[in-house]
Amino acid sequence: MKNILLIGAGRSATSLIQYLLKRCTETGWHLRVGDLSESLAREKIGETPVASAFRFDIFDEAQRDREIMDADLVISMLPAHFHSLPCQSCLKFGKHLLTASYVSDEIQLLDQQAREKGVLILMECGLDPGIDHMSAMRVLDQIRGAGHEINAFESFTGGLVAPQSCEGNPWEYKFTWNPRNVVLAGTGTVKFIQEGRYKYIPYHKVFRRTEIIELPEYGYFEGYANRDSLKYREVYGLESVETLYRGTLRRPGYCKTWDIFVQLGATDDSYKMEGVANMTHRQFLNSFLSYDPHNSVELKLAHYMKLDLDGQIMFRMKWLDLFEEIPVGLEEGTPAQILEHILQKKWKMEPQDQDMIVMWHKFLYEENGQMREIQSHMVIEGEDAQHTGMAKTVGLPLGIAADMILSGKIRETGVHIPVKPSIYNPILDELEKAGIKFVERQIS
Amino acid sequence: MKNILLIGAGRSATSLIQYLLKRCTETGWHLRVGDLSESLAREKIGETPVASAFRFDIFDEAQRDREIMDADLVISMLPAHFHSLPCQSCLKFGKHLLTASYVSDEIQLLDQQAREKGVLILMECGLDPGIDHMSAMRVLDQIRGAGHEINAFESFTGGLVAPQSCEGNPWEYKFTWNPRNVVLAGTGTVKFIQEGRYKYIPYHKVFRRTEIIELPEYGYFEGYANRDSLKYREVYGLESVETLYRGTLRRPGYCKTWDIFVQLGATDDSYKMEGVANMTHRQFLNSFLSYDPHNSVELKLAHYMKLDLDGQIMFRMKWLDLFEEIPVGLEEGTPAQILEHILQKKWKMEPQDQDMIVMWHKFLYEENGQMREIQSHMVIEGEDAQHTGMAKTVGLPLGIAADMILSGKIRETGVHIPVKPSIYNPILDELEKAGIKFVERQIS
Repeated sequence: MKNILLIGAGRSATSLIQYLLKRCTETGWHLRVGDLSESLAREKIGETPVASAFRFDIFDEAQRDREIMDADLVISMLPAHFHSLPCQSCLKFGKHLLTASYVSDEIQLLDQQAREKGVLILMECGLDPGIDHMSAMRVLDQIRGAGHEINAFESFTGGLVAPQSCEGNPWEYKFTWNPRNVVLAGTGTVKFIQEGRYKYIPYHKVFRRTEIIELPEYGYFEGYANRDSLKYREVYGLESVETLYRGTLRRPGYCKTWDIFVQLGATDDSYKMEGVANMTHRQFLNSFLSYDPHNSVELKLAHYMKLDLDGQIMFRMKWLDLFEEIPVGLEEGTPAQILEHILQKKWKMEPQDQDMIVMWHKFLYEENGQMREIQSHMVIEGEDAQHTGMAKTVGLPLGIAADMILSGKIRETGVHIPVKPSIYNPILDELEKAGIKFVERQIS
Repeated sequence: MKNILLIGAGRSATSLIQYLLKRCTETGWHLRVGDLSESLAREKIGETPVASAFRFDIFDEAQRDREIMDADLVISMLPAHFHSLPCQSCLKFGKHLLTASYVSDEIQLLDQQAREKGVLILMECGLDPGIDHMSAMRVLDQIRGAGHEINAFESFTGGLVAPQSCEGNPWEYKFTWNPRNVVLAGTGTVKFIQEGRYKYIPYHKVFRRTEIIELPEYGYFEGYANRDSLKYREVYGLESVETLYRGTLRRPGYCKTWDIFVQLGATDDSYKMEGVANMTHRQFLNSFLSYDPHNSVELKLAHYMKLDLDGQIMFRMKWLDLFEEIPVGLEEGTPAQILEHILQKKWKMEPQDQDMIVMWHKFLYEENGQMREIQSHMVIEGEDAQHTGMAKTVGLPLGIAADMILSGKIRETGVHIPVKPSIYNPILDELEKAGIKFVERQIS
């Protein structure tokens, strides 16, 4: 009998727990789910003999060691900066660790120690990072395995709302995941390489330099660049690639409108605004416009941003009630915090709303002197606001990886992300069976 | 006989040293000038019996204490973050300290201790901060003294080039002071208050929201907002003012062109660029433009920034040789460092060049129910690249303050900036005699 310890039972753990409960029932394994809120953990497992729930405090070292000592595998769904604590205990007791978070420098340094102890620390095993690595590497390895050189790799992922859940919403968008990350998306400088040339985009231009992407059946999306494309050269073994570009998908029109917030400075998170307790939506907007008692906020915005008063962008702003004298409803906050709070009023997922995950890759390579292109994509819709596509695509790869590690199908040791065939192949095969599969098309 | 200790003999100290040498000759006082470079200190004082030069290391505590113990007054021209070291020694030995730097929180905390020891720590006593405080406070105190309420205060300062030294230079600008500060100017978020409303401008809009200012005889200037206007409410006792705005002056057209660098991301100081050692000016520019092998860098820039190919902005860019395949000439660097290096090639002051300091204040106040306006301005030209207007306007207030402290005309103790009549009046009176005077006009 194997014991799985899962720490953190938040919304990203829902599908993972369901998968693990099913596997425990089939195999006789036991699942322990620990969370600061014992009732949340209990609610997530329901009534079952194969699992137990308990209050878990990551800072209680004695509890941490005791629980990890009793486990065969630890899955941490805690925020990324907490991972070094379970990681240390896992190394102490020789237990495997699995997360969906990025490998930090701190954890990467534990590689040698993990190898010596026969421990696997498998990170970046959710959706993005996770499924993006696995699905891209499988195609990249296929192409390279056939002796061809990769010329370009582009990859976009988006956490969106299903079409039926955004009718009448001109943004065609809602917060399906961490709203704060959505508001702060794109901050920093974008770095990528195109046709061998390094390119840089500052934050205030990111939402104006988008690409249009078309998916069969699903139509058009627009993608803005992620900050960190260059580092994937090393991660994917693409050191001599001419073009490498990673980005985030939205529905057409979103970026150009979101850019208005960026241009205004309404996504700034570096200072607290004055007088927030008595601020209305309209006053929030007006704080970023010049003083002019003879003109309306509407006209000042339209003039400053060169917008048509009756155009789509102004309509999306109006739809958010940004021109209304509605109280913000916060005591204090940065522009980003206030904007997030205002957006929540219209962008909150309703219980019956369904989200939608879209991932798309493009590969260019040379075959007999000819440039050839493969595109690959995946679209997953959620069932409702609880059983989201996001929870499914984050949770299932973790659940399957746990299964593969415990049943001996993944036998690596050390610190890994799923870019090796020995790791991604068994996981991708199982994901396909669970309905998470990519459509691969030879474009030319 | 009094002893003055001056530490730091860089270019900002030139006029100060000349003033102090003259006063020492007149009074019999002695000046000791210490710098890490003894030869620089020696060169600055020349052959004179009233002063001595020596090698000074601020981190040598024994030397620091010895020198400060022997002095009656210490003037620190070191970079601002070093001031706490001489400050501690001054408190230890009961000596006065004078600087042109902003009061840090650390130094502000020493106020009580300084009072108890009978020590004056007078900060912000140069040009900006310095003359700006004194000249503004004299008018503000006049208006308030007559029983009127201040409604609005605006203040702009610019370190520029004299007209005769920028003929044929379409920017009408050169680096007359720290080039790095010029390249990074405006970063952060601008906060000010206008007609009782808080207003915020993000960095990427600062150079597009300028004001036009006209000076008699000198014509038009444009001003962009400084980051920190709100804090001057407290400093100047203007807690209930409706409008408070501080900014920096440039010649018309500068800001709109500089904004191109901001929009491109060429002033970013947060990351090092790739391939700098082999980079040309043209490639530097192209790094911020989209990849497009069918169009020139010129057309891509003009299209991206919506510029006329034959307009003034493109001409200013061309004049800087930005479209040329000239090697940058650096081994590595951030965009801001590379831009600074390229700009130095055309914006360096030649030995015979003259700089020009412009300061302008505007005061609105109510008198018998009527809004009245006073404007006040000062223009100072340098003699050459060594004896600059900047060195004069930074150095003279310090020199005069030193004189006033040693001769007992300023008798405050504690941590101060020159906003009290007992401090600013004697200094402004002496500045006028030295030719640094404001023209005050009652506009309405």
